[in-house]
Amino acid sequence: MRCYQVESFGLDHLKMVKQAGSSAPGPGLVLVQIKAVSLNFRDLMMVQGLYNPKQKLPLVPCSDGAGVVLAVGEGVMRVKVGDRVMGIFSQSWLAGPATRERSSHTLGGPLEGTLTEERIFPAEGLVHTPDYLSDVEAATLPCTAVTAWHALVERGNLRAGETVLLQGTGGLSMSALQTAKLMGARVIITSSSDEKLERAKALGAAAGINYKTTPGWDKTVRELTGGVGVDHVVELGGADTWNKSLRAVRVGGHIAVIGVLGGAGSPEVSLVPVLMQNLRINGVFVGSRDIFEAMLKAYTLGEVRPVVDRVFPFSDAPAAFRHLAGGGHFGKIVIEMEG
Amino acid sequence: MRCYQVESFGLDHLKMVKQAGSSAPGPGLVLVQIKAVSLNFRDLMMVQGLYNPKQKLPLVPCSDGAGVVLAVGEGVMRVKVGDRVMGIFSQSWLAGPATRERSSHTLGGPLEGTLTEERIFPAEGLVHTPDYLSDVEAATLPCTAVTAWHALVERGNLRAGETVLLQGTGGLSMSALQTAKLMGARVIITSSSDEKLERAKALGAAAGINYKTTPGWDKTVRELTGGVGVDHVVELGGADTWNKSLRAVRVGGHIAVIGVLGGAGSPEVSLVPVLMQNLRINGVFVGSRDIFEAMLKAYTLGEVRPVVDRVFPFSDAPAAFRHLAGGGHFGKIVIEMEG
Amino acid sequence: MRCYQVESFGLDHLKMVKQAGSSAPGPGLVLVQIKAVSLNFRDLMMVQGLYNPKQKLPLVPCSDGAGVVLAVGEGVMRVKVGDRVMGIFSQSWLAGPATRERSSHTLGGPLEGTLTEERIFPAEGLVHTPDYLSDVEAATLPCTAVTAWHALVERGNLRAGETVLLQGTGGLSMSALQTAKLMGARVIITSSSDEKLERAKALGAAAGINYKTTPGWDKTVRELTGGVGVDHVVELGGADTWNKSLRAVRVGGHIAVIGVLGGAGSPEVSLVPVLMQNLRINGVFVGSRDIFEAMLKAYTLGEVRPVVDRVFPFSDAPAAFRHLAGGGHFGKIVIEMEG
Amino acid sequence: MRCYQVESFGLDHLKMVKQAGSSAPGPGLVLVQIKAVSLNFRDLMMVQGLYNPKQKLPLVPCSDGAGVVLAVGEGVMRVKVGDRVMGIFSQSWLAGPATRERSSHTLGGPLEGTLTEERIFPAEGLVHTPDYLSDVEAATLPCTAVTAWHALVERGNLRAGETVLLQGTGGLSMSALQTAKLMGARVIITSSSDEKLERAKALGAAAGINYKTTPGWDKTVRELTGGVGVDHVVELGGADTWNKSLRAVRVGGHIAVIGVLGGAGSPEVSLVPVLMQNLRINGVFVGSRDIFEAMLKAYTLGEVRPVVDRVFPFSDAPAAFRHLAGGGHFGKIVIEMEG
Repeated sequence: MRCYQVESFGLDHLKMVKQAGSSAPGPGLVLVQIKAVSLNFRDLMMVQGLYNPKQKLPLVPCSDGAGVVLAVGEGVMRVKVGDRVMGIFSQSWLAGPATRERSSHTLGGPLEGTLTEERIFPAEGLVHTPDYLSDVEAATLPCTAVTAWHALVERGNLRAGETVLLQGTGGLSMSALQTAKLMGARVIITSSSDEKLERAKALGAAAGINYKTTPGWDKTVRELTGGVGVDHVVELGGADTWNKSLRAVRVGGHIAVIGVLGGAGSPEVSLVPVLMQNLRINGVFVGSRDIFEAMLKAYTLGEVRPVVDRVFPFSDAPAAFRHLAGGGHFGKIVIEMEG
Repeated sequence: MRCYQVESFGLDHLKMVKQAGSSAPGPGLVLVQIKAVSLNFRDLMMVQGLYNPKQKLPLVPCSDGAGVVLAVGEGVMRVKVGDRVMGIFSQSWLAGPATRERSSHTLGGPLEGTLTEERIFPAEGLVHTPDYLSDVEAATLPCTAVTAWHALVERGNLRAGETVLLQGTGGLSMSALQTAKLMGARVIITSSSDEKLERAKALGAAAGINYKTTPGWDKTVRELTGGVGVDHVVELGGADTWNKSLRAVRVGGHIAVIGVLGGAGSPEVSLVPVLMQNLRINGVFVGSRDIFEAMLKAYTLGEVRPVVDRVFPFSDAPAAFRHLAGGGHFGKIVIEMEG
Repeated sequence: MRCYQVESFGLDHLKMVKQAGSSAPGPGLVLVQIKAVSLNFRDLMMVQGLYNPKQKLPLVPCSDGAGVVLAVGEGVMRVKVGDRVMGIFSQSWLAGPATRERSSHTLGGPLEGTLTEERIFPAEGLVHTPDYLSDVEAATLPCTAVTAWHALVERGNLRAGETVLLQGTGGLSMSALQTAKLMGARVIITSSSDEKLERAKALGAAAGINYKTTPGWDKTVRELTGGVGVDHVVELGGADTWNKSLRAVRVGGHIAVIGVLGGAGSPEVSLVPVLMQNLRINGVFVGSRDIFEAMLKAYTLGEVRPVVDRVFPFSDAPAAFRHLAGGGHFGKIVIEMEG
Repeated sequence: MRCYQVESFGLDHLKMVKQAGSSAPGPGLVLVQIKAVSLNFRDLMMVQGLYNPKQKLPLVPCSDGAGVVLAVGEGVMRVKVGDRVMGIFSQSWLAGPATRERSSHTLGGPLEGTLTEERIFPAEGLVHTPDYLSDVEAATLPCTAVTAWHALVERGNLRAGETVLLQGTGGLSMSALQTAKLMGARVIITSSSDEKLERAKALGAAAGINYKTTPGWDKTVRELTGGVGVDHVVELGGADTWNKSLRAVRVGGHIAVIGVLGGAGSPEVSLVPVLMQNLRINGVFVGSRDIFEAMLKAYTLGEVRPVVDRVFPFSDAPAAFRHLAGGGHFGKIVIEMEG
């Protein structure tokens, strides 16, 4: 059985190792053969030591994975051998609102991750893969698709006819685009690439704005909404975009903070408009198994196909991380196990 | 200016009369030329004296109407001459939850209704007709489309991927079908007519059940939902269907009671399953102007075309009522003013 | 180790038996010494075979219990030896909304109950007893106090200043009274006994109505609310009270159905006012561990003392059931283990 | 009839002037004799030209006022001559969530304010003063008490047993303290004055922290909540306190931003913890008439007496503004009309 381990921080220290295959899973546990893994920025930062410098090493990185059940321990009712499954991001967050305890058992740090050919999960930490999805597609869902659903549907109470502003065309934004479309909403999206904007429109975005050539994109957003502003912003950019997001959202509108990528040092962001415009802000960090399953129900009915940027073979996993670091992707980067 | 009046209860006493045209509207008021009117069961019952035997007569019946602004009084900012508009069902329910006061200023009894060539409304009691809709289509919206949106979206918190059970193929069910589809939900519908079920499927229903030939339709619904039951029931039938609806809905599910048509005398309905299955029941009687406008935003984005069964000329309005009483319709019955 | 078992249905067949003491608890399990048990109507009906005639026998009855941890199995982090604990009603309902799976692992049927000196629980199925409560008091909480909190706070969204109508003075109503008072609400309560009404007022009820001497108590309720009606009804009586509750609640108000005691045969209850008055109805059957813990937080801050009607010794448990069947109690009936 | 006007920005330009008494109110309008006015920081900033430098002058300042109805125009049903009333902050926000339109008709700028012996209001812009309150007390409610209720109850979903962190002892914090106590919550409060902390405790605060002598007050707050953090923060301080508030709130907790007083220039506030801890942030700027009336229902039941710092006579209104600017107050500063 092979897996990757971060032996010391830095992408150069991500090494494939061979280990003894897993023994039979204990009571309540499930042995899963991982078939595909997708990458999130968190995984890259974790490997680089930027996410949690105190993380114990060696660590098997990555939190998103899909595979098939090889064996189940005593008392397991939730899955059976041969079932196709995905792991949930925080293995202890099954239902209800976030708590420290529920949020802290996350794959790929502090817990061992999914970039391995086999892994044992608690049965409760798995969900079933819908039939219509390949393992490569399923592997993209546990973080970004759950986050987008949590942000827009559960916390944001998104409704058909509302307008959602998305920033960029990475995995999170593509998941938010697909969720918004499922719910009958209208999407405005920004990118630095006209070509990516065209691809986003092909996926259903109503309008695209190139933030390089249109630095005053907040005004464009207002014009596109009859001067009112959007109902929801999915905020990814942090300090670089926050103040413009505040000008792009309507009075009483909603900003979901699901990533804080932009800006160096301490971002300087303003709170005054939050108050004056009666805004709702929700910080959203993935979500519960309940949210995952609600999202899957909708994806399955709509036969939503996640946006896969590129698939790397398991033997070339570090190249996948470097592709992510390069930032040129559109949608999710996946690593597929051979055979 | 011509209008219909109920001079004494009974469909035979619905008479067209000529009246002096309206004078200039006072401060805050708006004179509207009504172009089209749609019928609800409430209108039929009102004319028959079955809805409110204490209603003062004569009464201009009907609550749904669409038209164009002919004149505005002093201080009116909300609409201007030439605007296409619809009246809201309860003229005092602009926003917020139901209260007695907000629910009681309803058109077509106790207030004068819309089956008239001209009517004066408070400016606050109007909403704008979306450009993409004809007056005939718009006239169908103020009751059934608002009720369906209120029931499923506002109160029921409907989400993509959920399953909705609809009863029958009248105006309310067709509005609920269109709302459910806008929000990415799956619809199961019942009818006594296979032909109507086919039409409902053409509009997006995933499955249809003929309740005449399948009296155990509640079991069929459970089978269609993997044994779980539906997430939402839109209950229209009353005593005839209530107990089956309770068996068709999932644990923790939602039943919107938006009509109680079936059964004679006091319906015998059970509460025990409501308790044991942790059900949510919402009685929904139309809704606020805010709800109307939220629905219009979604309809406009989705370019939803209301289902019009048949259009009668103004001069033949009583025939429209008789067509409704006959029960053979599919969607809404509309009366259109000539010229 | 002694416990009671229902060997065949009927109160006469509730027998104390001696069994071998529990062996060491397995992984994730906890051995609890039960110190006190409280009775619910469900327990009485279960023993009588009226609740679930298909329940497998013998059964240890009762779902409410409080005690102390004697031993913990491998991997248990949630509790430690010596901790004072209570069992949660449905051992699988930890968080989130009701589902069939979450609702079905209930103590005292189908699972073995709490009327035993020792019982093994999954660690996840326990909550900590607040220091300020005795075991007798704590034993009253798992069903009625959780149900009342779930009904009024979680589902009903109760707010300070609102008025709550309670029916009767049993355990559920007393829990609802205490919850309503904690949240700053006003309580109107009905009973057939003036003496019990006085005791309810001493606990904080603003007004009491004797429904025997005031059969038109719904009108009295309206008068006590300025003609408006109450914001919330906690419905316990079923067919006997439903139609009056519909007249006692305000437009847009809330009825929590948490018990359906009254009436013989199929209750004849009306749905029309549910629709016309835009009512919200919530069926509430106990609740999750999250709800239990939220309630405990409030009880602890407010140092709420549950209302204990009478305490019976373990050796006299059948007398406690008979006392419950007699209906003369005020608050909860408790069975306390000796020594 | 006398009133104060801001003739040019600056407290020195706040002048009392005499005007002709109001003529009879027009249709839908109400003439109110103002008896008392309370001050908010917004009023001070408005007079100084810091709130809205584009505000047209002269302006009658102040938004909070209570008085008695002197005359009503045609068609007014909501109030009658002799009724005691308060004006709502934004005269167009009657119900429902914030919109630009609803938020923009605010008293004391852009609309004329309440620092006048007589003022005409639309009937819809008034609420009734509860009998148990004096005019001086009632005059404190329209901004701070509505804001606190909106923030904690409506948006924050505050529940009994939760812990609320308040910053400072001004009018807003005292309103939040009283609201939290009404709902059965626990309050921790900060101040730079031990004496003020004692007064806050006398009003029901469970704990007080002097942020001057305890600059690491966020750690103290965590200790006071068993390491978990508070459920709600009422954020008033802006950049000075934001980052500490983020450390004082629990995972999944709520921060209501209802004032941004502290810090110079663009505050540097962080968004990363908002994301990582799944926080909910609500900007809250006063609220609707519905919220005002819900708050009054609770205040009346609890006979809550607003905290009045000091009452100035109408003739000495500028001194009241200077007292506010001095910052030494505890609760609200009121100006009372003579006679």
